[in-house]
Amino acid sequence: MSIHEECGVFGIFNRNLEHDAVQETYLALYALQHRGQVSCGIAARNGDNVDCITELGTVPDVFNKDKLASLTASGKGNVAIGHVRYSAQGEEDEINSQPMVMSYAKGSISIVNNGSLVSTAKLRSNLEAGGSVFQTNSNAEMIVHLIVRHRLQTENIEKAISRAMSELEGAYSFIIMSPKKLIAVRDPKGFRPLCYGKLGNSYVIASESCAIQSIGGEVIRDIEPGEILVITEDAVYSNKDNCGQKTSMCIFEHVYLARPDSVIDGASVHRARLNAGKFLAIEHPVEADVVVGVPDSGIDAAIGYANESGIPFGIGLIKNRYIGRTFIQTTQRQRERSVQIKLNPLGNEIEGKRIVLVDDSIVRGTTCAKLIKKLRDAGAKEIHMRISSPPFINPCYFGTDISSKDKLIACKLDIDEICRFIGADSLGYLSRESMMKVAENSKVEFCSACFTGEYPVDVTGENFVDKYSKKIN
Amino acid sequence: MSIHEECGVFGIFNRNLEHDAVQETYLALYALQHRGQVSCGIAARNGDNVDCITELGTVPDVFNKDKLASLTASGKGNVAIGHVRYSAQGEEDEINSQPMVMSYAKGSISIVNNGSLVSTAKLRSNLEAGGSVFQTNSNAEMIVHLIVRHRLQTENIEKAISRAMSELEGAYSFIIMSPKKLIAVRDPKGFRPLCYGKLGNSYVIASESCAIQSIGGEVIRDIEPGEILVITEDAVYSNKDNCGQKTSMCIFEHVYLARPDSVIDGASVHRARLNAGKFLAIEHPVEADVVVGVPDSGIDAAIGYANESGIPFGIGLIKNRYIGRTFIQTTQRQRERSVQIKLNPLGNEIEGKRIVLVDDSIVRGTTCAKLIKKLRDAGAKEIHMRISSPPFINPCYFGTDISSKDKLIACKLDIDEICRFIGADSLGYLSRESMMKVAENSKVEFCSACFTGEYPVDVTGENFVDKYSKKIN
Amino acid sequence: MSIHEECGVFGIFNRNLEHDAVQETYLALYALQHRGQVSCGIAARNGDNVDCITELGTVPDVFNKDKLASLTASGKGNVAIGHVRYSAQGEEDEINSQPMVMSYAKGSISIVNNGSLVSTAKLRSNLEAGGSVFQTNSNAEMIVHLIVRHRLQTENIEKAISRAMSELEGAYSFIIMSPKKLIAVRDPKGFRPLCYGKLGNSYVIASESCAIQSIGGEVIRDIEPGEILVITEDAVYSNKDNCGQKTSMCIFEHVYLARPDSVIDGASVHRARLNAGKFLAIEHPVEADVVVGVPDSGIDAAIGYANESGIPFGIGLIKNRYIGRTFIQTTQRQRERSVQIKLNPLGNEIEGKRIVLVDDSIVRGTTCAKLIKKLRDAGAKEIHMRISSPPFINPCYFGTDISSKDKLIACKLDIDEICRFIGADSLGYLSRESMMKVAENSKVEFCSACFTGEYPVDVTGENFVDKYSKKIN
Amino acid sequence: MSIHEECGVFGIFNRNLEHDAVQETYLALYALQHRGQVSCGIAARNGDNVDCITELGTVPDVFNKDKLASLTASGKGNVAIGHVRYSAQGEEDEINSQPMVMSYAKGSISIVNNGSLVSTAKLRSNLEAGGSVFQTNSNAEMIVHLIVRHRLQTENIEKAISRAMSELEGAYSFIIMSPKKLIAVRDPKGFRPLCYGKLGNSYVIASESCAIQSIGGEVIRDIEPGEILVITEDAVYSNKDNCGQKTSMCIFEHVYLARPDSVIDGASVHRARLNAGKFLAIEHPVEADVVVGVPDSGIDAAIGYANESGIPFGIGLIKNRYIGRTFIQTTQRQRERSVQIKLNPLGNEIEGKRIVLVDDSIVRGTTCAKLIKKLRDAGAKEIHMRISSPPFINPCYFGTDISSKDKLIACKLDIDEICRFIGADSLGYLSRESMMKVAENSKVEFCSACFTGEYPVDVTGENFVDKYSKKIN
Repeated sequence: MSIHEECGVFGIFNRNLEHDAVQETYLALYALQHRGQVSCGIAARNGDNVDCITELGTVPDVFNKDKLASLTASGKGNVAIGHVRYSAQGEEDEINSQPMVMSYAKGSISIVNNGSLVSTAKLRSNLEAGGSVFQTNSNAEMIVHLIVRHRLQTENIEKAISRAMSELEGAYSFIIMSPKKLIAVRDPKGFRPLCYGKLGNSYVIASESCAIQSIGGEVIRDIEPGEILVITEDAVYSNKDNCGQKTSMCIFEHVYLARPDSVIDGASVHRARLNAGKFLAIEHPVEADVVVGVPDSGIDAAIGYANESGIPFGIGLIKNRYIGRTFIQTTQRQRERSVQIKLNPLGNEIEGKRIVLVDDSIVRGTTCAKLIKKLRDAGAKEIHMRISSPPFINPCYFGTDISSKDKLIACKLDIDEICRFIGADSLGYLSRESMMKVAENSKVEFCSACFTGEYPVDVTGENFVDKYSKKIN
Repeated sequence: MSIHEECGVFGIFNRNLEHDAVQETYLALYALQHRGQVSCGIAARNGDNVDCITELGTVPDVFNKDKLASLTASGKGNVAIGHVRYSAQGEEDEINSQPMVMSYAKGSISIVNNGSLVSTAKLRSNLEAGGSVFQTNSNAEMIVHLIVRHRLQTENIEKAISRAMSELEGAYSFIIMSPKKLIAVRDPKGFRPLCYGKLGNSYVIASESCAIQSIGGEVIRDIEPGEILVITEDAVYSNKDNCGQKTSMCIFEHVYLARPDSVIDGASVHRARLNAGKFLAIEHPVEADVVVGVPDSGIDAAIGYANESGIPFGIGLIKNRYIGRTFIQTTQRQRERSVQIKLNPLGNEIEGKRIVLVDDSIVRGTTCAKLIKKLRDAGAKEIHMRISSPPFINPCYFGTDISSKDKLIACKLDIDEICRFIGADSLGYLSRESMMKVAENSKVEFCSACFTGEYPVDVTGENFVDKYSKKIN
Repeated sequence: MSIHEECGVFGIFNRNLEHDAVQETYLALYALQHRGQVSCGIAARNGDNVDCITELGTVPDVFNKDKLASLTASGKGNVAIGHVRYSAQGEEDEINSQPMVMSYAKGSISIVNNGSLVSTAKLRSNLEAGGSVFQTNSNAEMIVHLIVRHRLQTENIEKAISRAMSELEGAYSFIIMSPKKLIAVRDPKGFRPLCYGKLGNSYVIASESCAIQSIGGEVIRDIEPGEILVITEDAVYSNKDNCGQKTSMCIFEHVYLARPDSVIDGASVHRARLNAGKFLAIEHPVEADVVVGVPDSGIDAAIGYANESGIPFGIGLIKNRYIGRTFIQTTQRQRERSVQIKLNPLGNEIEGKRIVLVDDSIVRGTTCAKLIKKLRDAGAKEIHMRISSPPFINPCYFGTDISSKDKLIACKLDIDEICRFIGADSLGYLSRESMMKVAENSKVEFCSACFTGEYPVDVTGENFVDKYSKKIN
Repeated sequence: MSIHEECGVFGIFNRNLEHDAVQETYLALYALQHRGQVSCGIAARNGDNVDCITELGTVPDVFNKDKLASLTASGKGNVAIGHVRYSAQGEEDEINSQPMVMSYAKGSISIVNNGSLVSTAKLRSNLEAGGSVFQTNSNAEMIVHLIVRHRLQTENIEKAISRAMSELEGAYSFIIMSPKKLIAVRDPKGFRPLCYGKLGNSYVIASESCAIQSIGGEVIRDIEPGEILVITEDAVYSNKDNCGQKTSMCIFEHVYLARPDSVIDGASVHRARLNAGKFLAIEHPVEADVVVGVPDSGIDAAIGYANESGIPFGIGLIKNRYIGRTFIQTTQRQRERSVQIKLNPLGNEIEGKRIVLVDDSIVRGTTCAKLIKKLRDAGAKEIHMRISSPPFINPCYFGTDISSKDKLIACKLDIDEICRFIGADSLGYLSRESMMKVAENSKVEFCSACFTGEYPVDVTGENFVDKYSKKIN
């Protein structure tokens, strides 16, 4: 059980049809797959025609040769957008899959979005009062309706988007494909990452820089918080009407959500994790024989801890790469030992050793407790747990699924109690102060509401929906 | 290659939850499957919650135990609606599958529709000018948008529907599921059938009476052309503001589209086909040894012909029941003999005989020619072709897919020429006059535009889209 | 619930590669699909290479373009064999699917078989004592092992088969594909049909003549009971060492199992059914208004009854063509009315009428009782049930699944009691004497053990396995 | 492109039915999935009944709840065996999937095998001369036939196996499930690993110790080369008739094939890889800033190199965890950059650095060249390639798929040439001498034929089948 990012987005304006836009999008979605495995989709525009496929499943589950071919049947794609989804506001149903392709008075409009709006009830009810009919409960559909309303009264779509943004609150990083333009929009707080780059003479937009690099593109820069970046066949320009607000990028992108080879707003994610480990070593030193990271997300911080402390880094846990969503546990006994099936202690690296065990977070504490028990069974002499983020004590409304307070161990127990609950010899969390410093060179500030309760926007009307009970894994 | 009906609809108001509404809908869709095999779907309402599944494929393709269970997860269903679709205006894609489930200012609104509107471009553009955003190109979505617009300015949904009907032109028989009501609506011309009945204390609505009977219900009556029938937990009432116009039910429902065990507007379909055969025998008598119907749709008329003429009815062609949409013909040779793979002559019923061969229609003539050749190869001495409808010479805009003029053999050749083309010894079509009389006791009049070119509504703005080239079968 | 044939076989020796052997086999299997819907398969030989695909499901379920292409990847197929299976001795598992492709000292040997051996325990134990290892419990595998044993001591495979036949007892019609030959073998009693024909310059073998005709071939003749027919690239010859015994073809092939457009051992199946109806009219006349056949298998006999009696033939029941193996009935209520979902009375043909209802057999009587109830609900005044075969009172060991005695209503009740149980006004079964005469011009005699208990081979060691409880439909 | 292990096996004797044998096998196969992803299967015995499921695909692809349930329908399983397969002698077809379940004179016999026999042509021809009929071309089937032949002349199965072993040459580690016994057999050379342990009071057998630990069992010891270990409901005993020969375990199990948390014949795989890295640092030292391992198999050796050299270990390449067998590359351009899609350089760890890049082997060199190019594009100043095994120059006949000589770069180029080909600044391979020392505490000796050409058994009759051209990935 862990924290999940909600979505990843990608778009390409395939100038002069130099690429196969669908194929590039397909490849880029692989690089964003860690941001969502519930559904995915691609929409491609050839001339006036927009073809779209969305389905439940991962990129390899959904796209086979026939489906990719059907998307390119009418051409190589002037523009294409793609999406991977966890399952934010909507359930795990197909209806909320993206891209959403719609049409209105000015032609077609397609969208992919990452984030989570707040104050949506009021927005929706305003739109409905004007005759809007909704077919999903996704933010993306509401955003389009709002843009459409403004578009009927403005000279161009970027102006309409700019006005719509003044009515949207919360986290959103979306890409719009209109008949002539590909448009990237990031909310004024910059909650979620969004960047763009070049691929040959074409332009690409992605949630994370790793997606651009994976397909051989060159990253240009992050979309600024509040920016509307417009790409056409022969121009690239920005509307920055909504820029300049105090920013609050989600620090959990650096802690856990983003891929370590991404650079977000100037800060390397991998470097941020090494730093978290380094600060942890400084704040919570201990005498030990080996530093072991919980794969995969604890490895970087473990290296950072090892480098700072001088205690050797070691591989102490082997992760089974084949256990996924479809893993079946029919008996209680299976469930009890599920941790070991996923993570097996590497006996001779553990036996008789004093271990610093590094992970990125503790949610309920049960998984952590099982893991520590397994390490003790494998002969660990001491286990010092180190967590590369502060304790969460507040729900998130901006697109991660940090649990409601009842489920969060840090809401119910103090650190000594947690330490006893998980069975560690010592426990240290990264301090809030250090957390805010891990992202070296970052051009933005961070939201730390999950640690502090200080929300960057008004969330008093929000109800937290606990999605943990539905999780398979 | 033959003419296809476009859709079938079903709905149930499950009073006091006496039934499993989803299961009843599932069963009823089986009885409507002949009206559409491209996609199907069911939406069920439990309290405020509406669950919906739509997918490409037939009822058994789409619904398995898990899917039926997921639809009933939240209860037995206060109301459910279902749909089978051929592929009218939209392509064979999933996005146009029904039911469509939407929400607007007054809550949820779900729809299933059978028919085909005309003058949609103007309607759509009016709605878009008011800010409407469309996600499909189906009539159903447009109808809902229009109803919603009116609903915001009327006291109840039936009034809104009534006003909307004055802006809709063409063929539609739809069922609406709103938060408290199940509503059946049939266009003022009555192009497509729609009837309702009781199942225990509950009410059911269906495209054809056979669906109500199949699930053990009792048919009450047809929805009148122009009628809005409203069913609630404790009342059933009608709005007839739009009733009383000159009707024009599609005569092809009787000729080919409907199931023979259905009764439409008071007329038995089976009886209508027997009558067609009877009139054909009177109009085009011939000396022969046996009357053979082309299975399945020519059988009833063949019996009618045999009974009238005194020539014995015989089974002369065996239809392969297993050849369906997925039949693969990779070689030219296969395609050439596809007729025989589907219909095999029954040698000793054919050999040395003078045959009256009865079918419901001739579209391009190629299939008919192959069939006659096969019968001659099997030893038929004479073959007298009799068609239980007049020649089509005009396209249909109301929900069947009668081909454009270039494909219709009767637009290019006169009857003698057709007779030579198909290789028959004689050829007789049912006269228009007799066609109009086949439906005994019918309470409605008929559209015969495909034979006469006299369209009951203005179709001058319509472009006929030839869908034949895309057909698999 | 009805009686099922167990298998259908097909083979083609594609001389000079004039056809696509896999495609022809695929098409022919469609025409044999009524003989088995549980699994199917095709094996094709190109030079020394044999490729084979078998899977659970019908022909369209199993074969798509990719699979057909994979079978023809190495060429057009010098020889191919195909199989459709119900589920005779084996269960509904994949392991028993055919063709079976094996190899032994002389090269590859592939088989498809229709029938059911008796005395298999002794045969298997003899083979095992010699070191045989079995991977299935199918007759086909045992037959191959036995042939292989003999082949090691004889000069050619037909001699080995001839010797093996002296050790095989019961019903079998198999096709063997060896490195150079295609061989058709029918047991000396001729229990199951098997015939061959030409397709261009190539030769084809099939369980029923309809399969040869469907693909445009010309039937030459039936394989004689006991005959081994060998087809090579340049010769066709027979071994008739085992011919000349008293024959006992299964009369149920004519009553129900075979397709009406097939001719078996000189007798037309359709004609046999008409005759059964005729004799029934003579033996059990009644005053009535209409003769109605239960679709599909009762239709032909109903026409025969109508022609003989002078009572008009009418369509009184409409069969739903879409209800198949995957039909889901989750509630008790559904199960109770399943008959009506499958067969809906055609109201105005039934109401107020005295009906002769013709079906081919009564197994348990429950389905028949429900059907009669539905007809009475639809207004039938009298219902006179006529069965076009005598009562079954004995199990079959030769490849049909006629139930054990406990399930057979005719073992428990006399005819008057059955009549009351099913709710008919009168009931008449065809006499055994007439049954034996229905197949006009037949060159073989018939097994009537299911009616008489006089088995043509010793079955005292057989245990009847009741498979009814496992049937889905 | 890399080297693949061919299979993994698992078995459990579920004493007193204390576990769910199928569930345990399912879980254990997850832990062996790295040994084969082409197909998998489980066979379970309940009393005399053996149920088996095998299919193409990985464990999560093949097994869902329904399939696991069908295997446990007849009970919790007295014994079960399971298999994961790459694709050794057979093609990627289903027919060669294991377990194979057979029956012979003494009852059922089921097998799962890992390894590759040599001299099979003679063995097969001897068996065929005795009447054996084969249905696959797998070693497993031949092994069973041979055992069966001996079993008919010996008092028990272990004696039969012992005799069979004297006729088998090459690599095999198999598990037999007979009516009363579970038997583990490892070839006298011990080419492939095989060990056993306890799970409660039950016994388990597995290719690797990690599978036993993952399901919470306790490893007892390795099966000795040549040993036949028999487990019954109340005894565990060995036949060691074939023990005591010179051993030759495949050293590539330590280099690449086995999971690092396994201990094989007393030696930790992880430790062996650390040692390989250590020796590499001693043999090929270089001045550099960071040691980067190619994920996943190069990571351990990179840590070993870093620890020995004092150069910091760093994460420099991020592996995309979602790219698998179904990855589609339709354009040439995609194929060219496939390396980067799978492995993305972590920019700020690479830029301006002198890098020691550690991988386990170089096969063709093309992938390595692309990777080095990408690292240079990312700013690497120097790249020193270090390979944790010696160059392969000979094919393997014992169950790995090391390529034929034409594909192996080390057969065509010397080390300097390879270094230039891949574009590295320097290149060092581990020496053969060091290779033989990496497995600390190993109780067996190693096969190094792929490096030295000195085969431990006679392979002069073997034809190497190059399987590389068929690989998807």
